[in-house]
Amino acid sequence: MYTADFVSELQSRKEKIVTALRKVSADAILLTDNANLYYMSGRVFCGYAYVPVEGRILYFVRRPVGLRGDNVVYIRKPEQMAEELRRREVPWPSTLLLEGDSLPFNEYNRLAEIFAPAQVLGSGTALIRQVRAVKTPYEIALLRKSAASHDTMYRRIPKLYKEGMTDVEFSFEIERLARQHGCLGIFRTFGRSMEIFMGNVLSGENADTPSPYDFAMGGAGLDNSLPVGANGSVIRRGETVMVDMNGNFTGYMTDLSRVFSLGQLPAEAHHAHQVSLSIQQAIQRMARPGVATAELYAKAAETAEAEGVSDFFMGHRQKAHFVGHGIGIEVNELPVLALRSKEVLEEGMVFALEPKFVIPSVGPVGIENTFLVTAEGVEKLTTCDEAILPLD
Amino acid sequence: MYTADFVSELQSRKEKIVTALRKVSADAILLTDNANLYYMSGRVFCGYAYVPVEGRILYFVRRPVGLRGDNVVYIRKPEQMAEELRRREVPWPSTLLLEGDSLPFNEYNRLAEIFAPAQVLGSGTALIRQVRAVKTPYEIALLRKSAASHDTMYRRIPKLYKEGMTDVEFSFEIERLARQHGCLGIFRTFGRSMEIFMGNVLSGENADTPSPYDFAMGGAGLDNSLPVGANGSVIRRGETVMVDMNGNFTGYMTDLSRVFSLGQLPAEAHHAHQVSLSIQQAIQRMARPGVATAELYAKAAETAEAEGVSDFFMGHRQKAHFVGHGIGIEVNELPVLALRSKEVLEEGMVFALEPKFVIPSVGPVGIENTFLVTAEGVEKLTTCDEAILPLD
Repeated sequence: MYTADFVSELQSRKEKIVTALRKVSADAILLTDNANLYYMSGRVFCGYAYVPVEGRILYFVRRPVGLRGDNVVYIRKPEQMAEELRRREVPWPSTLLLEGDSLPFNEYNRLAEIFAPAQVLGSGTALIRQVRAVKTPYEIALLRKSAASHDTMYRRIPKLYKEGMTDVEFSFEIERLARQHGCLGIFRTFGRSMEIFMGNVLSGENADTPSPYDFAMGGAGLDNSLPVGANGSVIRRGETVMVDMNGNFTGYMTDLSRVFSLGQLPAEAHHAHQVSLSIQQAIQRMARPGVATAELYAKAAETAEAEGVSDFFMGHRQKAHFVGHGIGIEVNELPVLALRSKEVLEEGMVFALEPKFVIPSVGPVGIENTFLVTAEGVEKLTTCDEAILPLD
Repeated sequence: MYTADFVSELQSRKEKIVTALRKVSADAILLTDNANLYYMSGRVFCGYAYVPVEGRILYFVRRPVGLRGDNVVYIRKPEQMAEELRRREVPWPSTLLLEGDSLPFNEYNRLAEIFAPAQVLGSGTALIRQVRAVKTPYEIALLRKSAASHDTMYRRIPKLYKEGMTDVEFSFEIERLARQHGCLGIFRTFGRSMEIFMGNVLSGENADTPSPYDFAMGGAGLDNSLPVGANGSVIRRGETVMVDMNGNFTGYMTDLSRVFSLGQLPAEAHHAHQVSLSIQQAIQRMARPGVATAELYAKAAETAEAEGVSDFFMGHRQKAHFVGHGIGIEVNELPVLALRSKEVLEEGMVFALEPKFVIPSVGPVGIENTFLVTAEGVEKLTTCDEAILPLD
């Protein structure tokens, strides 16, 4: 099923999971979420990955037909997993973790019954999210590849603008540009409440419209069924446009926002943009393994306060309560850079830092980049020009 | 918060839910899923809609700020729902339904505890899906609007093709066309395993690649993280291209597939396409309120068998086991047109019918249209040309 390289990669991922399972005295975890199946097998399939502390991973597959491997078992219903474990004389787990934060209640209960009399715990999501927060060199290579494509496509954005365009018209061109550069389109989010299409193109007053979603920025969107992002307003002189477009070029996403301007902007917009760059610089200096992400958030908020722009920091009418977030297979992984976050940076973590400001009647300013935590500090993976770039 | 029109629409939706709740002797349902919140309020928000048999709907909102109404209650955490129910002296439910097929296990348990000592049941998803299967005139108007935009945009597809294009290049142009016609982009699916970007553009041999998803058609996709749809193959002479692109123009989706050809096709491709049209015609004649959807599936499968093309029916290497599905806010609503389906057509149901065939080394043929169940039969909502249209 896989190249030798990927077999050893899977082995190292499995070891990380086993270490985490041992810490909580669990014998196995059953993964079912698409993001986790992709992590544990290198491809999305419909089924389950049974990952025991002792023994091999078993892949229970419903679809697609045609996967091969002596640890690939085709099933029609989940109850067949129990038959197969017995047939293979796999030791029955005493304690099994399930993905309690993504598996629906009814499906969880059905799975828990299948593994009776095991003690079944719903802390599997928390465990796998902790593991996935620290990327392997293989994953980092995919993130670098996404970052490179993301950068290249962003450099071409200004050329897409034509006078009189609405925010959505500009967005359609950027979406196509992204796809032409290899963007897979799909924007994977964790959590049942998050929805977005390919990303946000926010200009002028619309940037100050609160949205239901826990993204850094809002916008009214085109319809109440998806109230976020561009809303069809003409981009006007004296306004900014922030482009925060999907960086999923490899199955691993980078996050990148840049601001463009039409005509002259008021001084306060330029000032707030500079504060965003200062925050990034300060955090780049502080961030290294062992640093609490809450400290990074505090530094960002303090800087905004000291510079007199806290009213606009991370939104205006509605504020996001974080300044950064882990990213990888999903856009909202661990760690979270927030005031109440308990997480500490580790080497191999990858996070997006997005100190942003919404200036009423002007639009959003600030930047977003994706950073890798290295042994000594952080490395910026997305590197295109950070200035406010004129569209005219 | 709403126009008078929409208040009466919400009232009629609520009445349908109350009727369904009474049938199972439940006192209330708590809705939290985005599709259901949109159904129950006319907009997506982050929070909960508490829908009791007796008394008014209460909207518990976490985000966005700014919603107004004397039944809108802002909360920071779900436990505040209980405080508010007590404050308003709302009768405590004896039996409460939760969305057991979409609420994650851990969140479900937290909500169940909040409503203790109520008996909490996980059958809320099944109930609301039954209710949503029968559309109101207001919803049907939105589906008609989506169908009209969907048709208009499909008529322009052949002009987008340029010689030598790959399937993905063709797809990027169709995606932009859809967006320019008002497509919201987001493709809402029910169930944790379903993922797709904007739709499928499948040509030639790639159409026979099995996918992990329960869509009618497969395709390898561009990456193992989203193994479905176009895979970057050049569209060759003698091949077909099936376009099955997102029809979400209003929050309510229509489903529509058409086939295009490059050069001459073998006779078996034309024959299978004609069988698809015959199946549609037969089902149009049979379908009316009271007819079992399993009978419609059986008729489709029998026709394919009688015409000698059952090997290619609904896929070849991997087959889909349905020939149609309900559609509305999500692409996979009730009823399902499948062999084991227990559902019976009712006036107001809307379903996509997609008798499709995959001809190895040629590609997919067949069609898909969206139908409304009327008092006497069915009405086809999507009406663009059903012939195989040449790209050259």
